[in-house]
Amino acid sequence: MRTRTKLTIAYLGGPFLGWQRQPTGRTVQGEIERALATMTSGLEAAVVGAGRTDAGVHAAGQVAHVDLSAMIPPDAMVRALNGLLPDEIRVRSAVRVDERFHARRSARGKLYCYRVRWRPSPWPWLGARCAVMPRVVAFDELGRAAARLVGCHDFASFTVPEAAAEPTVRELYRVQVSPRRDGLDLGFIGSGFLRYQVRRMVAALLEVGRDRLCVDDVQEMIASPQPGRPLPTAPARGLTLERVLYRPTPLLEHLRNS
Amino acid sequence: MRTRTKLTIAYLGGPFLGWQRQPTGRTVQGEIERALATMTSGLEAAVVGAGRTDAGVHAAGQVAHVDLSAMIPPDAMVRALNGLLPDEIRVRSAVRVDERFHARRSARGKLYCYRVRWRPSPWPWLGARCAVMPRVVAFDELGRAAARLVGCHDFASFTVPEAAAEPTVRELYRVQVSPRRDGLDLGFIGSGFLRYQVRRMVAALLEVGRDRLCVDDVQEMIASPQPGRPLPTAPARGLTLERVLYRPTPLLEHLRNS
Repeated sequence: MRTRTKLTIAYLGGPFLGWQRQPTGRTVQGEIERALATMTSGLEAAVVGAGRTDAGVHAAGQVAHVDLSAMIPPDAMVRALNGLLPDEIRVRSAVRVDERFHARRSARGKLYCYRVRWRPSPWPWLGARCAVMPRVVAFDELGRAAARLVGCHDFASFTVPEAAAEPTVRELYRVQVSPRRDGLDLGFIGSGFLRYQVRRMVAALLEVGRDRLCVDDVQEMIASPQPGRPLPTAPARGLTLERVLYRPTPLLEHLRNS
Repeated sequence: MRTRTKLTIAYLGGPFLGWQRQPTGRTVQGEIERALATMTSGLEAAVVGAGRTDAGVHAAGQVAHVDLSAMIPPDAMVRALNGLLPDEIRVRSAVRVDERFHARRSARGKLYCYRVRWRPSPWPWLGARCAVMPRVVAFDELGRAAARLVGCHDFASFTVPEAAAEPTVRELYRVQVSPRRDGLDLGFIGSGFLRYQVRRMVAALLEVGRDRLCVDDVQEMIASPQPGRPLPTAPARGLTLERVLYRPTPLLEHLRNS
């Protein structure tokens, strides 16, 4: 009998070509599958992630599931995997779940945070998850533009043309703008995100904060979805997948009802 | 006319073979000298550090001086060097100083911190400056052993035989034992430290904390200095040179008078 295990995983994106397994090059999924194969003497390998993260993007709470035929206690599994994985990937927890749980299909939402700083940290051990970008001045305008993004919209303007072949409507529940010492954190909670969507929304909002775009320009990107709009993509280095939300989550219910 | 500049430097030790320039391999001094040579079009290169740190040891406040013939404003120098240096090395500040200031000879003391954790951090972006080591239980005994190290002693037992060819008497002003969530920080302030001294003192103190050595064993290492004692050396990864102290420093005066 196979048992399904839910893994919660944190990683630094820098050394990897992204989450998804590739024929060549290091990926997070590839590293975890390799560790799993070693742990089970080659019996198991397939890991299903909640979603892909692009090259250089970090995760604090990526979620994946794996089906194991061996009866490995979850705590022992965490220790064994972390002993086999590179330092940049840590399995935070393993929990046995019902086989109806599916890391991707059961996901009801995701929480991303984008961290911008106006200057590099003087401490080399900080700032690995921050992007250094030109200072923003118009915080109020940036906040107003962020509010226009919230809701159920066609986000095609914020993705790459290739991705726009699939449905591009998503619901963005909330954008949180949090000024930080020497920078800004932008939090996004939504039903799901298109490829590059968060990083292109961040780039657009920062352009508003620098008076190079106005709130109505962002409104127009939502109102007239145009895949392949000439819009910059904020660097991967600033983006972290913070949490994957599964039903029932009080946070999600609260957001939908508020 | 040449002007002397004092640089305060932070670095992660992992990627480097230590502070000191080597014929081959990356070192912190080597990287800074290379950046300096690029900045001055090959005019300047020699950087004098307050002391060497070993391979893998970090610094929050290493100090070095450099003599420049070009008139480069200190702030511009910080920006230029940081633009040329790898992310793991950051110049925190540059200050013009009197030519009587010498990074090594003017130093009156150093502050090191050793960070031990009982288990790896679940966050890959934390813990770069911590060593994961077996748990300590006897905190009181560890604290008593630490107190025995304080004072002006021959620390030959805590260095390598090669280093014991030079004078091995040093003054240790203070050892601070600070329990942390999931670990322990050990701070050492002294006039100066022999090669491996801090890491071997840490190893001895942790052995006391694990009931494998007693306070009198540590006392005996001080009372009968024996270079090359069979004593483990705690991993470089846990050690950070926090500050170099120059006269007059209120901290140092306070410690000497208290």
